[in-house]
Amino acid sequence: MAKLWNKGYELDPAAEAFTVGNDYLLDRHLARYDILGSLAHAEMLASIGILSKEELGELSGELLKLLKLADDGKFEISPEQEDVHTAVEEALVAKLGDVGKKLHTGRSRNDQIILDLRLYSRDRLIDIRRNILSFAKTLVTFARKHEFVPMPGRSHTQRAMPSSVGTWAGAFTESLLDDVEIIKAAYRLNNQCPLGSAAGYGSCLPLNRQMTSDLLGFEKVQNNVLYVQNSLGKFEAVIVFALSQVMDDFGRLAGDTILFSVPEFGYFSLPDELCPGSSIMPQKKNPGPLELVRAKASVVSSLAMRISSIIRNLPSGYNRDVQETKGPLMQAFDITLGCVSMMERIFGSLVVNVDVLEKAFSGELFAADAATRLAADGTPFREAYKKVASQIDSLDTENAEENIRSKTHVGAPGCLGLSSLEENIKSEIKAADAEKKRLDSLSTSLPPSS
Amino acid sequence: MAKLWNKGYELDPAAEAFTVGNDYLLDRHLARYDILGSLAHAEMLASIGILSKEELGELSGELLKLLKLADDGKFEISPEQEDVHTAVEEALVAKLGDVGKKLHTGRSRNDQIILDLRLYSRDRLIDIRRNILSFAKTLVTFARKHEFVPMPGRSHTQRAMPSSVGTWAGAFTESLLDDVEIIKAAYRLNNQCPLGSAAGYGSCLPLNRQMTSDLLGFEKVQNNVLYVQNSLGKFEAVIVFALSQVMDDFGRLAGDTILFSVPEFGYFSLPDELCPGSSIMPQKKNPGPLELVRAKASVVSSLAMRISSIIRNLPSGYNRDVQETKGPLMQAFDITLGCVSMMERIFGSLVVNVDVLEKAFSGELFAADAATRLAADGTPFREAYKKVASQIDSLDTENAEENIRSKTHVGAPGCLGLSSLEENIKSEIKAADAEKKRLDSLSTSLPPSS
Amino acid sequence: MAKLWNKGYELDPAAEAFTVGNDYLLDRHLARYDILGSLAHAEMLASIGILSKEELGELSGELLKLLKLADDGKFEISPEQEDVHTAVEEALVAKLGDVGKKLHTGRSRNDQIILDLRLYSRDRLIDIRRNILSFAKTLVTFARKHEFVPMPGRSHTQRAMPSSVGTWAGAFTESLLDDVEIIKAAYRLNNQCPLGSAAGYGSCLPLNRQMTSDLLGFEKVQNNVLYVQNSLGKFEAVIVFALSQVMDDFGRLAGDTILFSVPEFGYFSLPDELCPGSSIMPQKKNPGPLELVRAKASVVSSLAMRISSIIRNLPSGYNRDVQETKGPLMQAFDITLGCVSMMERIFGSLVVNVDVLEKAFSGELFAADAATRLAADGTPFREAYKKVASQIDSLDTENAEENIRSKTHVGAPGCLGLSSLEENIKSEIKAADAEKKRLDSLSTSLPPSS
Amino acid sequence: MAKLWNKGYELDPAAEAFTVGNDYLLDRHLARYDILGSLAHAEMLASIGILSKEELGELSGELLKLLKLADDGKFEISPEQEDVHTAVEEALVAKLGDVGKKLHTGRSRNDQIILDLRLYSRDRLIDIRRNILSFAKTLVTFARKHEFVPMPGRSHTQRAMPSSVGTWAGAFTESLLDDVEIIKAAYRLNNQCPLGSAAGYGSCLPLNRQMTSDLLGFEKVQNNVLYVQNSLGKFEAVIVFALSQVMDDFGRLAGDTILFSVPEFGYFSLPDELCPGSSIMPQKKNPGPLELVRAKASVVSSLAMRISSIIRNLPSGYNRDVQETKGPLMQAFDITLGCVSMMERIFGSLVVNVDVLEKAFSGELFAADAATRLAADGTPFREAYKKVASQIDSLDTENAEENIRSKTHVGAPGCLGLSSLEENIKSEIKAADAEKKRLDSLSTSLPPSS
Repeated sequence: MAKLWNKGYELDPAAEAFTVGNDYLLDRHLARYDILGSLAHAEMLASIGILSKEELGELSGELLKLLKLADDGKFEISPEQEDVHTAVEEALVAKLGDVGKKLHTGRSRNDQIILDLRLYSRDRLIDIRRNILSFAKTLVTFARKHEFVPMPGRSHTQRAMPSSVGTWAGAFTESLLDDVEIIKAAYRLNNQCPLGSAAGYGSCLPLNRQMTSDLLGFEKVQNNVLYVQNSLGKFEAVIVFALSQVMDDFGRLAGDTILFSVPEFGYFSLPDELCPGSSIMPQKKNPGPLELVRAKASVVSSLAMRISSIIRNLPSGYNRDVQETKGPLMQAFDITLGCVSMMERIFGSLVVNVDVLEKAFSGELFAADAATRLAADGTPFREAYKKVASQIDSLDTENAEENIRSKTHVGAPGCLGLSSLEENIKSEIKAADAEKKRLDSLSTSLPPSS
Repeated sequence: MAKLWNKGYELDPAAEAFTVGNDYLLDRHLARYDILGSLAHAEMLASIGILSKEELGELSGELLKLLKLADDGKFEISPEQEDVHTAVEEALVAKLGDVGKKLHTGRSRNDQIILDLRLYSRDRLIDIRRNILSFAKTLVTFARKHEFVPMPGRSHTQRAMPSSVGTWAGAFTESLLDDVEIIKAAYRLNNQCPLGSAAGYGSCLPLNRQMTSDLLGFEKVQNNVLYVQNSLGKFEAVIVFALSQVMDDFGRLAGDTILFSVPEFGYFSLPDELCPGSSIMPQKKNPGPLELVRAKASVVSSLAMRISSIIRNLPSGYNRDVQETKGPLMQAFDITLGCVSMMERIFGSLVVNVDVLEKAFSGELFAADAATRLAADGTPFREAYKKVASQIDSLDTENAEENIRSKTHVGAPGCLGLSSLEENIKSEIKAADAEKKRLDSLSTSLPPSS
Repeated sequence: MAKLWNKGYELDPAAEAFTVGNDYLLDRHLARYDILGSLAHAEMLASIGILSKEELGELSGELLKLLKLADDGKFEISPEQEDVHTAVEEALVAKLGDVGKKLHTGRSRNDQIILDLRLYSRDRLIDIRRNILSFAKTLVTFARKHEFVPMPGRSHTQRAMPSSVGTWAGAFTESLLDDVEIIKAAYRLNNQCPLGSAAGYGSCLPLNRQMTSDLLGFEKVQNNVLYVQNSLGKFEAVIVFALSQVMDDFGRLAGDTILFSVPEFGYFSLPDELCPGSSIMPQKKNPGPLELVRAKASVVSSLAMRISSIIRNLPSGYNRDVQETKGPLMQAFDITLGCVSMMERIFGSLVVNVDVLEKAFSGELFAADAATRLAADGTPFREAYKKVASQIDSLDTENAEENIRSKTHVGAPGCLGLSSLEENIKSEIKAADAEKKRLDSLSTSLPPSS
Repeated sequence: MAKLWNKGYELDPAAEAFTVGNDYLLDRHLARYDILGSLAHAEMLASIGILSKEELGELSGELLKLLKLADDGKFEISPEQEDVHTAVEEALVAKLGDVGKKLHTGRSRNDQIILDLRLYSRDRLIDIRRNILSFAKTLVTFARKHEFVPMPGRSHTQRAMPSSVGTWAGAFTESLLDDVEIIKAAYRLNNQCPLGSAAGYGSCLPLNRQMTSDLLGFEKVQNNVLYVQNSLGKFEAVIVFALSQVMDDFGRLAGDTILFSVPEFGYFSLPDELCPGSSIMPQKKNPGPLELVRAKASVVSSLAMRISSIIRNLPSGYNRDVQETKGPLMQAFDITLGCVSMMERIFGSLVVNVDVLEKAFSGELFAADAATRLAADGTPFREAYKKVASQIDSLDTENAEENIRSKTHVGAPGCLGLSSLEENIKSEIKAADAEKKRLDSLSTSLPPSS
């Protein structure tokens, strides 16, 4: 069947293959969203008299069938169709004839693809937010289980002061909660309805943009029709950057865990079933999953950078260049979701070697505390520091657990606030679940109540 | 005078020069904030009995003098002092002797530098937010002035559909308002008090972290002491990425303006006084400021990427590597502030050549509207499209202004919602001003009411 | 069948899926190279007495069958097999039993994968070098065809001085020839044999590394066994950066062509068959292929950056992280090869609108020449400049073609040296073809002359 | 005094400050090169009759005085002068009047700045090449000193097989030698003379470009006048990428050294005088210089990426954007030179703890060798692997030094080829010194033999 823009000449096959690329494959992930958007657009067209009630009924009926196909993973898009928009329109025309040809009135593939990506990103962002929170729960549980297991705190990779496994795990838990805020900000930015921008300059029809926005559950209409086009790529960069913050936390957590698991440290042990071996060295059990998580942090960061780079210096309005932002967005979501699951599994089974950690404490770790105690007793701190510095080798090793329990100011190893963290996570999960439920209900509420 | 960590050996001079780098110069920008932090820390130390009331009085008195020096740009830091923290402590010890040596009790340069950067970033972010809003106001005023001046709308750089100067300027105004939201999210992330993390593992003293946080006007204490250290670089990356969103908007706006000002387009004219000439071509008036804004968008983006790259794969806890994140943060602020001013100036004087714009309209720009009107009259859109496609060369040129005025759905050229935009900007400015006022009042409210 | 490293425990299925990722798919592109490497390794093992002549014969026979399968695209790798190395070993063991199990003696997957990538990259680099040269030939032919077609030369996007289509196309031709040198440097770096590094620490067997290197046609053995491992990722970054130089030239050439094809310029016309249309605007013919080439320049640059980022800060020796460098390497090759073809097609059919170009000349383009001529007659240049500047509006329009023909110094529009360029390209093609022939002959010369 | 392009209007002071930026400061580093270029240009102008012999004598005399000033660091450029080109021309006009005003004939600031940067980069590249080779010599000396000091070889950060300090240091030495080749490729690319491009479109004068190229010691004329302009930024990106390869090696070497120096490893000790302390922890001696080297690897990589990003998507011909590529180029040179020195110092004094390294060996490090020996005796390797895997815990610890001495194939720990490495380094140093001598002689040979 013909392309949407067919006007009597054929594209050079090589140029067609080059411009379509793997877009028709990526677009399969957007089928659900393209159809939801079409349902809303149709209802709006009927409300302004472009479609009759009957036409709307026919279109909605067919679209719901396509939605079922898409949700079952059976909606196919061929390379000749170029994209999901064409595939949906063709399916409708094949069934409904002229009625199908009416659906594109008042919209363009330019605003359709933006809509599809917004809806797609919204679902992915909710899933990721939810899964990060779930992992945060696993991590805080890990922290609580080992709250007072001592662990040498480090700076400059060197041994610094007494710390605990709980402090270490709690630090990453809090970082993930800040990441959730970054993700929520990206979510809000994304949650604006682009429909009605058409090719970037609106329509001469009295489109009811507020109506489609409401039907699709957006927080608001993205107003200026040209801004809609200019924001394609921009919003994606913000989203992938938000994901890269999560991934960078995972990368650092993975790096720490790898280091703490080498025999020279021996703080942690990874269970065998998470450790692939070597083809030549019979003894090796390698932290492959953690190394790959670490590498993937660089991958996601490069994807954010790529999107920004693609759209930089483009003139206003739609440019085909933005097609290349779709793949990195989808990859970033898939990678991040995969890594959350992997981290969840790792921290559900990581073994903490308490005896090794306790033996790792030596006198110099207590030097700062010794100086501070002298200071608390009246010696000016700078003098206390010098005094302790001159006696480093004869510093007594304190009981590590007692030491960390004695640090009781807010956020210190003896006062990590894990309960409060757990409460936060619980209420964040509740909020994420509620939003997810709201989104999931859209597909059932969308078809017109006839 | 000696370094804070002096313990009887001298650093190799080359190693010292290498590690200090230009840090002592960058730190001059932090003097105000280091002193404010010291005022709050001293008051807290007094509240838990580490300093007597008299000692607090002495310290506060000296610190206020140093604050005055810093605000007058006269607080110097020498390379030997390494950093602002040492310079402040030395100044206090020189005046107050042992009392000065007590101030470092319960803190480390590790949490001090984070505090300084948080306070510094907070001030810069407010300034930038305010200046962006001011430019948004200029831009919306420009949009209103040329609201119905027609301008060919483009996609793929090609001529697409009727648009207007107002649509174009309004699109960027809305984008800047979204950037303000991104900046506000970064601001909230940054507005957490790190003091009390000390070297990353807290203190054996009963530090009152909530008190210092309140005194310094933070929204909350950043809880986990290790997370505080791990967030150094992370928060800076988020901030600089937020700035890069602004810069990328400027870059695109600059690019459009350069293009629209070449003789082949001629839509705009840049006033001579903004256009440097050529050393060899007597006729040239070049859009130098716009080209540099465009280039600086790449610069700021590379700074965000740099910060992320520096901290990626570092082990938990403080690492000296993070020193290299300070420069890019400061550069990003300076560049963005400079570019906002420049854009403000350019859009305050950019000349719109209405006659050229009107003449730029030709028939094919109205093709989409022709097809849509056929569709509104009942022809299935896909048929209407084909019909118009076959008559492209004989399409009538409509009156461009009438055309854009007739597009009246939300966000379309005839309904840009500029009043609502102006209202938004006004209330955003009010909010930013209020927050700035709150921050400015901190230095007067900080010293203890004696 | 079992993994190469099987030692009695099973990997967690999720961890296995996560660590294997799509590696088994990517590895299909490496099958040919893994088999060639195995042929050479077997021959070397026989030469040092690890394999008997009969065993070598059996192994070589089976490997040649597998090579045929691979070259026919029929060599499959299953996810359970993890990688090509396992798949090949399993195929041999299935046929030959114990003899197959001997082949891994003295090597590791660590040096095998590096070898495979070196051989793979060598073939791709030769193809790309050859195709770039072919496109350079197309471009210089285009330049010669339009050698004296005048075209306003630009700086700062503004009109600057007289230039020609030949100058413009010649500039990119020369840039591509410099890119070929960059690619040749990457090729030389890559052309070092890693085999014998084993897991990064060599073998206790007297491996004849020079022999395998010679058999596989490498320029030299990469000496230090640990450096071999550390160079995985490093060489790939250098290669992809070299490709990104080509892509950035394509991006700029694409950008210029897009700009020169808008109606406001009209210098060039893209044939319809290379221009997809719009779904809503019946008149649109969009330069989609050129826009995608431009976008892909950013993609390849981000891939180079990604590889560097992944390996940065890794400890010495093999790390699983490097698995993530394989995909970007392959993508970069595929994208670059695809874009060379596309550019070849575009510049084989781009239409130059000579009349439009001639009409585009106006007086001010000749200002620099006017000043220079005054200078040549004795007026100090700075005075001449001012004089001409004051008379800009009354400058005569010269005959553009005469003007450019009169610029006869080396490299000027009237003396582009296209013949010399053509000669260069011809001899470069000859050299590339010779090297390609040498590489292609390896697979026939590799099996032992029995 | 007036700008070179003065034509009767004044730039807005803010726009002037914005466009000049810190360029006039950066340009001080280019003064020597601008003057050398002017000497060559003057001589060429005289050869084609634009300057009389007397005028050439006057100009050369003054230029040599300015060269002396520049080499003494006393050549100043004011912000009003914008750049070095203006400052030099003004100095000449002030002394020589009209003769000074003639020098700009046939050139533009566009080709002047490119020339200056090429000459500047050439000198810096030679220095860096020389200094890397010097460090490589230090490193190979370190390798030889500890050639057979055993060290556990690692993969996946885990213990893998026996290695040696010599293997480790040798690996980085070889990597640096490959970096030198990458730098030489960048050098060749850069060593093309741009003079005569003028504003990008050549001159109507019969410039003798070969003559200026020869006078300035370039390998060849960069032919096409437009390509000269398009290569500004491109060549810089290639150069900075080459530097980033060196820096990434330094970063990895620094990271290894930090890790091997923590107490848990204890392989190396950094001398106190290279280790700054902590302000709060009296015991700390931190590897600050190594951490900063590691961070600076990210910095230089980001600078390469920045340059590529700035020039991507720019239209052909000079654009002011490229001004922003000058700073990152200079920074990259300065950082790399600083880091080479620092690494030289560190590896001149790093202490190797032989006893700790020997004690670090445990049985499982010999597992791969045990399996390989079984294989050499006829057991199929895959069977041998399984047999050893089942006996890991009872593997004997071999004598580590004997083990590594017994690995005697090319590049293995027992056959590192250090003598050959030393020979290579020596001959590379000789070549670099010869090229440096050639460059240094240019300034004495440049003035016309009168």
